[in-house]
Amino acid sequence: PAWERDEDAIVRTVELADFAAALRFVNRVAELAEAADHHPDITIRWNKVTLTLSTHSAGGLTGKDFELARRIDALD
Amino acid sequence: PAWERDEDAIVRTVELADFAAALRFVNRVAELAEAADHHPDITIRWNKVTLTLSTHSAGGLTGKDFELARRIDALD
Repeated sequence: PAWERDEDAIVRTVELADFAAALRFVNRVAELAEAADHHPDITIRWNKVTLTLSTHSAGGLTGKDFELARRIDALD
Repeated sequence: PAWERDEDAIVRTVELADFAAALRFVNRVAELAEAADHHPDITIRWNKVTLTLSTHSAGGLTGKDFELARRIDALD
């Protein structure tokens, strides 16, 4: 479950069993995002979910990104 | 609520009130997708949801794409 640096963001793609499982994962990520008031870009391609974290208001990565990434990783 | 052609796909971006509303919209789209056994690529950027429909197994657009697009439009 590795995050990779992509310019001013960190990106992780998670592969789930199917689309329904991908949606359940997205909804759990969304709860964490709302709790943190920090929202990754989320792309769903059937069973694959790509999360992109960056702090747009700061023009790059901040502690908020790494903290939310850590909480998302703890979902697994 | 217009779909635009992008090569072998049709694409629509819907702007909702906020992230929570975007998630609710995605979950409703997901129900339609599961019912149709046809799944758009879905990207969520805070309050904006982009849906991309194509029939990968057919290498392009088919009636399944336009039918699901019609059902998604009926959600509004």
